[in-house]
Amino acid sequence: MKPDAPSPRTQIRRKPQRGHYDFATVAAIVDAAQICQIAFNEGGSVHCLPTASWRVGDHLYIHGASNSRLTRTLTGSDCSVCIAHLDGLVLARSAFHHSMNFRSVVIYGRFVAVDDPEEKKKALAAFVEHVSPGRSALVRAPTPAELAGTCVLRLPLDEAAAKIRHWGVEDDAGDLGIAVWAGVVPLHTAAGALLPDEDCAAFTEPALPDLVVLRA
Amino acid sequence: MKPDAPSPRTQIRRKPQRGHYDFATVAAIVDAAQICQIAFNEGGSVHCLPTASWRVGDHLYIHGASNSRLTRTLTGSDCSVCIAHLDGLVLARSAFHHSMNFRSVVIYGRFVAVDDPEEKKKALAAFVEHVSPGRSALVRAPTPAELAGTCVLRLPLDEAAAKIRHWGVEDDAGDLGIAVWAGVVPLHTAAGALLPDEDCAAFTEPALPDLVVLRA
Repeated sequence: MKPDAPSPRTQIRRKPQRGHYDFATVAAIVDAAQICQIAFNEGGSVHCLPTASWRVGDHLYIHGASNSRLTRTLTGSDCSVCIAHLDGLVLARSAFHHSMNFRSVVIYGRFVAVDDPEEKKKALAAFVEHVSPGRSALVRAPTPAELAGTCVLRLPLDEAAAKIRHWGVEDDAGDLGIAVWAGVVPLHTAAGALLPDEDCAAFTEPALPDLVVLRA
Repeated sequence: MKPDAPSPRTQIRRKPQRGHYDFATVAAIVDAAQICQIAFNEGGSVHCLPTASWRVGDHLYIHGASNSRLTRTLTGSDCSVCIAHLDGLVLARSAFHHSMNFRSVVIYGRFVAVDDPEEKKKALAAFVEHVSPGRSALVRAPTPAELAGTCVLRLPLDEAAAKIRHWGVEDDAGDLGIAVWAGVVPLHTAAGALLPDEDCAAFTEPALPDLVVLRA
């Protein structure tokens, strides 16, 4: 049995059979992302901005410059964070039944600043590990000035809803004879040839799987 | 010389050298997207929801069910639409200088419903063409009931700002001797093996480039 929505505003009303509210599903969608989009109000306008994100435990983390608008504003009022992965194009025999396969999550709540320097260091190391496992031990750690200039914020994942479509075409029975290819074109993120920094020529090019996790 | 921001709320204050306000740049980023994220206020909360999008001329288009919350709410107040393409992971020699290459656009304004049936039909055909050029002539066109149940909304692209990073590592000079690979891992969207609908076995599998445009 599916767990219930944690709040009225996370209740999926449109196609509720696509909704999921369990932590494992929400966390997996957050983990598959390198970036999220944040909706918030500031200066009389609603804004939607993209930023890098990662997860530690039951929180989504973001970072920014300590003096930036985003980091100042987000600790002062509720926001909504969205992550959406496009997994496939669903090509139907009618224009109407074209669709997309996707995994999305919407999280509501208020960010809290991670002020403790040790906790901030750990969160930023987890960010590097999210992109490139094992790398945080190989690169220069942040200086005190870099740490002071960086704001780390975290948002609990407990008020969240996921929505997933991951199946094939749903054509009307009367359309099945239409002479056009129908099905799903699965999509994923792929890497191109590595572009080493010019001062990096002395190094053997690492194998891609040892360098980064290709997230959806 | 770069054009100026069209409004105070589109003025990029953080790393302004990455900002672009010309229509061609904004349109190209919109065209490279299959989905956008929309920030809006409703019921005392700010929301961030993903939806499919496409461009016709100087407007971004979305669609939804005529009776959905999103379509009702968006014509009643201003929103912010964000599209972000992650183009690469920038791996530096210090944790601090890690970055991402991306193209993003943020658009402000209010959606207007496309009520004229002929205009709505054209907009929906353009949506199919956006995903799969040539396909709108091959599939069954929307019935009057399908058209009535579908709401098409458009948002002008004139209050928009793009932000782009598309270059290599920017390490501190003192870090260049650190023994770790540094550079950019370029990312793009790729398609997996086609998943034909079961009733589609009689058709020759089309070549991918003839079927869909792989957008970033």
